[in-house]
Amino acid sequence: MTVYKKHVKVLSEEGKVSYADITEDVKKAIAESQIENGICVVVTPHTTCSVFFEEYAHDINAAGDEFLQEDLNTVLEKIIPDHVSAETYVYPGEKHYEAVESWPNADEYLPNGDRTALWNGDAHLKATLIGSSTVFEVDNNKLAVGSTGYVYFADFDRTRARERKCSIIVMG
Amino acid sequence: MTVYKKHVKVLSEEGKVSYADITEDVKKAIAESQIENGICVVVTPHTTCSVFFEEYAHDINAAGDEFLQEDLNTVLEKIIPDHVSAETYVYPGEKHYEAVESWPNADEYLPNGDRTALWNGDAHLKATLIGSSTVFEVDNNKLAVGSTGYVYFADFDRTRARERKCSIIVMG
Amino acid sequence: MTVYKKHVKVLSEEGKVSYADITEDVKKAIAESQIENGICVVVTPHTTCSVFFEEYAHDINAAGDEFLQEDLNTVLEKIIPDHVSAETYVYPGEKHYEAVESWPNADEYLPNGDRTALWNGDAHLKATLIGSSTVFEVDNNKLAVGSTGYVYFADFDRTRARERKCSIIVMG
Repeated sequence: MTVYKKHVKVLSEEGKVSYADITEDVKKAIAESQIENGICVVVTPHTTCSVFFEEYAHDINAAGDEFLQEDLNTVLEKIIPDHVSAETYVYPGEKHYEAVESWPNADEYLPNGDRTALWNGDAHLKATLIGSSTVFEVDNNKLAVGSTGYVYFADFDRTRARERKCSIIVMG
Repeated sequence: MTVYKKHVKVLSEEGKVSYADITEDVKKAIAESQIENGICVVVTPHTTCSVFFEEYAHDINAAGDEFLQEDLNTVLEKIIPDHVSAETYVYPGEKHYEAVESWPNADEYLPNGDRTALWNGDAHLKATLIGSSTVFEVDNNKLAVGSTGYVYFADFDRTRARERKCSIIVMG
Repeated sequence: MTVYKKHVKVLSEEGKVSYADITEDVKKAIAESQIENGICVVVTPHTTCSVFFEEYAHDINAAGDEFLQEDLNTVLEKIIPDHVSAETYVYPGEKHYEAVESWPNADEYLPNGDRTALWNGDAHLKATLIGSSTVFEVDNNKLAVGSTGYVYFADFDRTRARERKCSIIVMG
């Protein structure tokens, strides 16, 4: 049995939840692995991101999102409102602000010392609900999903644009 | 290390969320695999279905659902209402309707050309929340769960009855 | 390829959702496995518990919970209220009460025959939403997450304090 790993990069936008269709990356990793039968695990190492399985919806809204992504945003916001004030969530908290401010790379998290840059509690909670990993079947060296099945990477953090990592691990 | 795979079929009903107890299928696949230690991955290839781990509740309601399933339906419907009109969700959308209408097997998705047959946005969103895969431990060639732990396959799509597939992959 | 397994014990409290940071256990299991590349699966065998990936928040509230855990409780309770009366959920149900009362270890579930000890429908539903398993990447014999990424075990069952089990399976 072998393990084949691939790390892909995903660019996220500021001011919105960012969804990326990574289906082709996953299919390519499976092909490269030459593994006939087993599993393909897709994982995010970031706590404000998720990986999930969903249909590709052909219509795109003004924000650039597929219609099912807009609907998912609407549904999640009903219980997880945007983190727009210090009162929306108890997170981050004074000690957390201070801890981040003490990091050598504090500037990356708190540009210009702006504490509101840490108001991404909504992203943490959405990522916990949707989950950080999804497992797929590999069958005859193919991703075993129907023709309408796609793999998405979501970055729920709206505070800033970033380059995110996603791990694809094929085993069998 | 070996990979043992089994594909099981699950029948769903029209007009309701369909839950199937697939615990015996999972236990049988593990026994057949002869794998002593490792994992058992249960996966749906359908974007409107989920696999989850839950207790078996002995009471059944008038719809034929276990009580915890009725409670799960109630909870999910609070944020994901039934897709009963074109206004419930932005999905499917005009391009999506047209794409499906162009498929060779369009009749399967749109019987008699009825576009309301695609009103399953609720099912897509519920499946994303609950997830498409669950991993279990295999210990001494057994499914390592307590006596009250069961494996369920859910088809959240209420638009029509179907035969669904579920993949069980044992590795170790 | 090898399989390395470790079972850890987690103590939960009565009267609240109990969260345990098991990151060190997971990192230790990976180190002990000596597996360079592959996956680490963390699984709960209990239907009222979950495993999830989240940031460590440095502030702790009066209940002893990290701030992101308090926020998660708040969010989940919006759709899954505490099971405080026979009307909150249809679960458990008469047959379920009777089934549990017939078990040889009924006393463990129903101390003094008190049926309200089974009012943990909220815990079952929360565990289904958050999920029973999470998969991580193992890279160079390390847990492949960023410096802010932690692994948590949640026991959503508030009815009594218990010793819970969690399985860590490293494969590669």
